[in-house]
Amino acid sequence: MRIKAINPNTTLEMTENIGEVADMYTSDDTEIVAVSPEKGPVSIESYYDDYLAIPGLLEEIRKDEDEFDAFINACWGDPGIDACREVTDKPVVGIAEGSMYVANMLGAKFSVATVLPRAKDLIEETVRTTGLESKCASVRCTDLSVVETETARDAAADALLEASEAAIEEDGAEAICLGCAGMGQLDKVLEEELPVPVIDSTGAAAVLAEGLVRLGKTTSKVMTYKSPEPKEIKGYPDIYQFGESTAPAADD
Amino acid sequence: MRIKAINPNTTLEMTENIGEVADMYTSDDTEIVAVSPEKGPVSIESYYDDYLAIPGLLEEIRKDEDEFDAFINACWGDPGIDACREVTDKPVVGIAEGSMYVANMLGAKFSVATVLPRAKDLIEETVRTTGLESKCASVRCTDLSVVETETARDAAADALLEASEAAIEEDGAEAICLGCAGMGQLDKVLEEELPVPVIDSTGAAAVLAEGLVRLGKTTSKVMTYKSPEPKEIKGYPDIYQFGESTAPAADD
Amino acid sequence: MRIKAINPNTTLEMTENIGEVADMYTSDDTEIVAVSPEKGPVSIESYYDDYLAIPGLLEEIRKDEDEFDAFINACWGDPGIDACREVTDKPVVGIAEGSMYVANMLGAKFSVATVLPRAKDLIEETVRTTGLESKCASVRCTDLSVVETETARDAAADALLEASEAAIEEDGAEAICLGCAGMGQLDKVLEEELPVPVIDSTGAAAVLAEGLVRLGKTTSKVMTYKSPEPKEIKGYPDIYQFGESTAPAADD
Amino acid sequence: MRIKAINPNTTLEMTENIGEVADMYTSDDTEIVAVSPEKGPVSIESYYDDYLAIPGLLEEIRKDEDEFDAFINACWGDPGIDACREVTDKPVVGIAEGSMYVANMLGAKFSVATVLPRAKDLIEETVRTTGLESKCASVRCTDLSVVETETARDAAADALLEASEAAIEEDGAEAICLGCAGMGQLDKVLEEELPVPVIDSTGAAAVLAEGLVRLGKTTSKVMTYKSPEPKEIKGYPDIYQFGESTAPAADD
Amino acid sequence: MRIKAINPNTTLEMTENIGEVADMYTSDDTEIVAVSPEKGPVSIESYYDDYLAIPGLLEEIRKDEDEFDAFINACWGDPGIDACREVTDKPVVGIAEGSMYVANMLGAKFSVATVLPRAKDLIEETVRTTGLESKCASVRCTDLSVVETETARDAAADALLEASEAAIEEDGAEAICLGCAGMGQLDKVLEEELPVPVIDSTGAAAVLAEGLVRLGKTTSKVMTYKSPEPKEIKGYPDIYQFGESTAPAADD
Amino acid sequence: MRIKAINPNTTLEMTENIGEVADMYTSDDTEIVAVSPEKGPVSIESYYDDYLAIPGLLEEIRKDEDEFDAFINACWGDPGIDACREVTDKPVVGIAEGSMYVANMLGAKFSVATVLPRAKDLIEETVRTTGLESKCASVRCTDLSVVETETARDAAADALLEASEAAIEEDGAEAICLGCAGMGQLDKVLEEELPVPVIDSTGAAAVLAEGLVRLGKTTSKVMTYKSPEPKEIKGYPDIYQFGESTAPAADD
Repeated sequence: MRIKAINPNTTLEMTENIGEVADMYTSDDTEIVAVSPEKGPVSIESYYDDYLAIPGLLEEIRKDEDEFDAFINACWGDPGIDACREVTDKPVVGIAEGSMYVANMLGAKFSVATVLPRAKDLIEETVRTTGLESKCASVRCTDLSVVETETARDAAADALLEASEAAIEEDGAEAICLGCAGMGQLDKVLEEELPVPVIDSTGAAAVLAEGLVRLGKTTSKVMTYKSPEPKEIKGYPDIYQFGESTAPAADD
Repeated sequence: MRIKAINPNTTLEMTENIGEVADMYTSDDTEIVAVSPEKGPVSIESYYDDYLAIPGLLEEIRKDEDEFDAFINACWGDPGIDACREVTDKPVVGIAEGSMYVANMLGAKFSVATVLPRAKDLIEETVRTTGLESKCASVRCTDLSVVETETARDAAADALLEASEAAIEEDGAEAICLGCAGMGQLDKVLEEELPVPVIDSTGAAAVLAEGLVRLGKTTSKVMTYKSPEPKEIKGYPDIYQFGESTAPAADD
Repeated sequence: MRIKAINPNTTLEMTENIGEVADMYTSDDTEIVAVSPEKGPVSIESYYDDYLAIPGLLEEIRKDEDEFDAFINACWGDPGIDACREVTDKPVVGIAEGSMYVANMLGAKFSVATVLPRAKDLIEETVRTTGLESKCASVRCTDLSVVETETARDAAADALLEASEAAIEEDGAEAICLGCAGMGQLDKVLEEELPVPVIDSTGAAAVLAEGLVRLGKTTSKVMTYKSPEPKEIKGYPDIYQFGESTAPAADD
Repeated sequence: MRIKAINPNTTLEMTENIGEVADMYTSDDTEIVAVSPEKGPVSIESYYDDYLAIPGLLEEIRKDEDEFDAFINACWGDPGIDACREVTDKPVVGIAEGSMYVANMLGAKFSVATVLPRAKDLIEETVRTTGLESKCASVRCTDLSVVETETARDAAADALLEASEAAIEEDGAEAICLGCAGMGQLDKVLEEELPVPVIDSTGAAAVLAEGLVRLGKTTSKVMTYKSPEPKEIKGYPDIYQFGESTAPAADD
Repeated sequence: MRIKAINPNTTLEMTENIGEVADMYTSDDTEIVAVSPEKGPVSIESYYDDYLAIPGLLEEIRKDEDEFDAFINACWGDPGIDACREVTDKPVVGIAEGSMYVANMLGAKFSVATVLPRAKDLIEETVRTTGLESKCASVRCTDLSVVETETARDAAADALLEASEAAIEEDGAEAICLGCAGMGQLDKVLEEELPVPVIDSTGAAAVLAEGLVRLGKTTSKVMTYKSPEPKEIKGYPDIYQFGESTAPAADD
Repeated sequence: MRIKAINPNTTLEMTENIGEVADMYTSDDTEIVAVSPEKGPVSIESYYDDYLAIPGLLEEIRKDEDEFDAFINACWGDPGIDACREVTDKPVVGIAEGSMYVANMLGAKFSVATVLPRAKDLIEETVRTTGLESKCASVRCTDLSVVETETARDAAADALLEASEAAIEEDGAEAICLGCAGMGQLDKVLEEELPVPVIDSTGAAAVLAEGLVRLGKTTSKVMTYKSPEPKEIKGYPDIYQFGESTAPAADD
């Protein structure tokens, strides 16, 4: 089995971490390929970053769709996950949804510990779109930028510890989702200090992607996730084109 | 007052219609400039189209932000509306939200009559993100493509009439939002046949944009809609760059 | 265009303020007439006050309905707004709903800063009835009576400032609706101190009412907002009578 | 124990029915006094009727509050129930809430079978305000006017039977609330034909009112249901006045 | 009328208290029989306890169903209330639901003051299953075990007072439900110190059960609460068997 | 890795099917042991059956907890799943939750195709407790008993096909969860006829259980899922006893 783990941002240290985590938790005979798009923001901290990352992410799925059995969308906003599901019928798993499902099986309520406060609304929307807002005790932000989660590991661990403790004590969280792919492998560090399970979101998505492949399931093409309608996408390279539509007849 | 009405798709006949409608309902001293991005899909009917339209839409706001008092996002999914609000502090009004506010002041429940069934989920998400799902009786799709709403007016009117009648009789709709910018100016045609108000969504957004400017209000920059964080957006033109971030210190 | 702004309470200083605000934000060729009913409470701070204000409010719409293009219901509980929509087909805009729509276009979440704590439930019900409870961060009360918002402007501004700061810092508000018509014109004062847009609710309703008239829309008469059924309203003056019903046949 | 059952409309045949039903289900030592206000609509079928009935209803509570242990608000919109709770600390039970509590203890989901379609929104709001919308399978309207429920018993029974059958078969209702006080004593007739319990709403409210008195409980006066603030209610008789407020100090 | 009040746990002091309370608030001609099952936990503080109490509780209903007119399920999680309704058509009232209905008629929002923090999720689920989560301000836990509510009355009163005060001041509660049958008769003690009504949950259930009997209503047997399907329940005594099913035909 | 798949009912043909399915989708080095309790109903179709199955299910976890890495609760009501999480810290995965997570990653909305109509409420509660009700298009029942899903495979497939088609066409389902463990291995049969993915719920739970073990996560013991409080469980065998509590001090 081959799974492509796509880091939607363009910071390669983070991509490497994502690859390590996905590999760590999947079977020996599952091959993980971790990549970043060539185009896009070095980190995703705003809606602006999120949207500008999506074209590159979609291209990474499109460009060698046939060589993989599943895809991981490795940013905790699951950017463009619905469009990802349109461009391929291979399973696509977001690290946000994946970590929430895992957390929801381990504790009665979970919280998300994440980056800058400005991302709170985006993270909350992600929880809501996945459908699990009634199980989410809170989204707790820190002062960490996305890049710092990767480059300033000690500071990141400290900030996440503080946010998680607040979530447990004040909000009733019984499990913590680490709300950024850059936090990969901090789950073990935090679990040493915290009384609750801490979810490495990339790891969660990896085992779920593997599971979907084992089940032999593919994305539903009956309605919402149909292949994009054939039409011209002006100014975009060929890889983005799904063909021309047949011209609709004008009134007469 | 100058308002820029941006058609996020690249079909210029639709852009023209949008300009006409916005002009029709705003004051004489309000100037409407209707544009399309150079890049992007010729119509928005899937999540894929929606995301690929956003970079061009954002560029249209960015490129002459100082010359306008407000912006209209003229696609009934309000694509990237949150990112639009990040890149400018001028008011930005989506035609989806605008039409729903108007409908909600005219009837106890409203429905949205819109294009292809595959767009239903996207339209429902838009209703939910705006916050008005408890007031929405239904989203009723037709077999119309977006382009047909503009090019096959009679067929479009017939299909929308049928969808609206079903919404009124079966779902309890008391007002209808026309769920596509291409349906501009069909409201009057439909009102001749239907017992409820029909909202031309671009018109609704236009009067709301004008109203926000009159109130002298600007977008909140305290948290979610702050200007994008300074960082490199790899492979994107200069107009997308908001500056470089100061490098975070590594642990040591 | 002529818009009648009805202050549902009987404190004329407040009516005057309402008229000034509505006039300030509407076009030069829009005439605003601000009135209070002859009957009713001098302020609305409880459900009791709210209901006793409604008959007078309805009379104000009924009595010269033909001379106006739209009506404003200028109390932040939108008292009897559904009945207002039954007695006329001219658009009726409540200052609660109007301010929430405006706030919802400017920030990701809004709070309402308002009068006495006892009004909290009434205000929350208004948010919920409008449909926007998922976008409302909080309702923050002060110790202000309604009349004090008008007569003790400095104290009112101070109390609202404190409530708004708490809403921003503790509840995540990104915009503030001023939750009483008596707070008209305090938005500018508060915006000097606060990092978020503050909505003068009467102003918001005024531009929306103007917008609805420009769009040429009237209230839906298909179901909920039909004209009241013909029947005797015992003990009420003629202006409240919509005619006699035809007697239903008894069983036999 | 003495309970005053107030029919908020002014049709005395209905008042009589309400008195009979309340008496039928309460203890022998409980005295029921059924009344109608002198002022108000002969039936409540719109928001307009609802609001115009409230002043008379409040007067009926106010005028001999000391002589009763509890009050019943006998219209299936529970009109002004919150204000009723402000003007007395004796328990006040609405027939809508009462019947829903009873239905919720007998079946997994209940429906409301009620009068004219135009009342659907009002009835749904009543369900929502009580808090039980997740347990309500549907509100099913008939072509019955309120008065016909009383005067055309056979036709009323037929129409309610049809509505109830639809609710059971199509909406999954397992209990039926009769959504109008005029339907008193039709529960037995309908239960002969239907496979589910049918709730005579006045009866339900009567036993609940009696229960609240037995428990010795009074309405909470800590916040929302405090006695109305002292102030002038212009143009209303003395019985509506709760005293003058102490004048607030103006700024200076 | 005869009502059987079943304490689902096996602590007889608590059963005695339940019997006293139910007797105190019902009519003289209503006979209360309070019992505990022979099997089951001495208190219910976890989901584990809750489920292990249910078989004994069901047996108590089954074993002399014909001798009673109604049943009370006297634990504030209403354990197995849906199954109780399957095994009899006599009304069954849970003390959780009963107390919430009473509280909801007395204040705009209620809180539940209850035992150990670990029970919070179970209590919240009970509120949600009843359908009243939008009216519940909070569930406030104490450090009390269930048994201590009965054996350490002064400490219990103190802890509940503190929890209730927090609920009123911080969460906006206007009424308090005592969230454990062991707290019977503490309502009066707490009302001396608190400005809100405090509901003795067993008392509330008792008057409601009596009311349902007076109304002559029985549990709906149309769907969810049908009698259990006939089948073998292996290893359970005869009293749990509802007969054998007819064997389904195999494919061939 | 060793996973114990517990069929909470006592029909051994179903247990065998569960074992086959769980084995089919897990790695070669994962050992599946499928069992049924000795005590309990032969099928679970009512709340009654559900509760009577739980003691046996809990015993199956308790009795050799140390020999397994995870547990599967193989009934589509996830009976007593919260108590299962109290009695062990090994991951426990229900087939209802598992199949819903899988479905939610494959289609925009899912439906559940299941057994007898009387189970609808129980199935809907399961969806709600898991937190995914906003993603569930519908629960569609058939006339199948649980046992027939296993013994009458052709009839079962036909009935599920019809229910699924209705869910897709009328309710907008884009994926189908098979709502009973007895339906194992029917997914492939149905996928031949249906345009959407069909989830074998036991298979979904199996890959998720394997994934949780790979991630090295255990159930949160901080609050809700703590080990049961030590206390006597009267009349239950030793295996149900978690020790005696220390006696609480009485007041004095």
